[in-house]
Amino acid sequence: MLIETCFTPQVYNLFHNPNAIVVVIDILRATSAITTAFYNGVHKMLPVETLEEAHNYKKNGIITAAERNGQMVEGFDLGNSPFGYMNAKLKGKTVAITTTNGTQAIVAAKSAHEIVIGSFLNIAVLSEYLSDKKRDIILLCAGWKNKFNLEDSVFAGALATELMKKFSFSTHCDSTIAAIELYKSAKYDLYDFLQNSSHQKRLAKLDLERDIKYCLTLNQCPVIPIIKHNEIVKAEI
Amino acid sequence: MLIETCFTPQVYNLFHNPNAIVVVIDILRATSAITTAFYNGVHKMLPVETLEEAHNYKKNGIITAAERNGQMVEGFDLGNSPFGYMNAKLKGKTVAITTTNGTQAIVAAKSAHEIVIGSFLNIAVLSEYLSDKKRDIILLCAGWKNKFNLEDSVFAGALATELMKKFSFSTHCDSTIAAIELYKSAKYDLYDFLQNSSHQKRLAKLDLERDIKYCLTLNQCPVIPIIKHNEIVKAEI
Repeated sequence: MLIETCFTPQVYNLFHNPNAIVVVIDILRATSAITTAFYNGVHKMLPVETLEEAHNYKKNGIITAAERNGQMVEGFDLGNSPFGYMNAKLKGKTVAITTTNGTQAIVAAKSAHEIVIGSFLNIAVLSEYLSDKKRDIILLCAGWKNKFNLEDSVFAGALATELMKKFSFSTHCDSTIAAIELYKSAKYDLYDFLQNSSHQKRLAKLDLERDIKYCLTLNQCPVIPIIKHNEIVKAEI
Repeated sequence: MLIETCFTPQVYNLFHNPNAIVVVIDILRATSAITTAFYNGVHKMLPVETLEEAHNYKKNGIITAAERNGQMVEGFDLGNSPFGYMNAKLKGKTVAITTTNGTQAIVAAKSAHEIVIGSFLNIAVLSEYLSDKKRDIILLCAGWKNKFNLEDSVFAGALATELMKKFSFSTHCDSTIAAIELYKSAKYDLYDFLQNSSHQKRLAKLDLERDIKYCLTLNQCPVIPIIKHNEIVKAEI
């Protein structure tokens, strides 16, 4: 079972393999928020590309989350702060969601065999789930507006390390090797390592330090959101 | 003066800045071969995208180099082994060249303010040259068929480290930060670090270990090839 890492959705076409499972990664903060939402009882999420579509869901009475450039878009119910999803009122509910990068990555991978949502919050259960599937894996980093970003790549390295150490995965892929090296440098203090990353700086300006620290915490939410028929649901594990 | 790093020509559009200098990087082996050629007295090189164009040059009596997938294409005079260019017969000559990745990266950057050729073989003189220019820099890795590759990224990290340590460059760019981290892990033994990289394995199969070791040697060829009017010439330094 092979692992490949795609650093930006823009080049996903070079990696596409109809038999592989794609792990979508947008650590700050879409995939961390989605993982948190399911851990806190959200029933279903609808990934949406544009704000226009999101408005339509909102008009039809669906709870709708919308984030652009790190901030919640006015007029919607939620942004992509994970803390917004720790709310008993969302239990059993359907939430539509559109974000700057994460939901775009989900859309890019739509013809994969299976798409799962990865974050530090669910890394251990996710590794086991992927191992059971016995398929090749593509780690798809959402990046920032199609550019490489550090936190998604470091997570790809963390997950690849886990899969290769504990399970029978391997890689021939330079981006996976690079991600593993980055994780080696980062793992003793993720927050400190990512301190200079462009997105962490962007979010720090918005006073989101609490969000960042939470998103870099391991195994707080042992659930696996997967995409089925264009909807995000919780996998049975 | 800012540094950005673009890991593959396919996303160069996201980085393009008409005022910046682009450093094209294809360590194994196009930009190492080009640096070697000029150090050994080649007068001019013509970067060519397709084999068809290369055939036309050849027909017109121009010495022509053509490489695809690590091997010299039959019927041409040279491949992209740097050792092929250590030949007194090439002194003062014009050489047309097409390679799998390197010449494509040159073409992708064609509307930049200036394009220069980077390799470990000219890293010190190149850093000084770039510093004198007082412009933003884009480090454009040729990669492998539009995918990220390790040796080009490690070189980008080496050059960025040099520019930021000795000269007044800085970066806000996650890919530059990642490249610098990779170089930190690689610098004590480049050959060993790159041992598992996909392209090094590809070339090792072709028995090109001598080429690889040469391409990872610092400052053997203190010349700076630059692109002027679609031709590669030696900069006056």
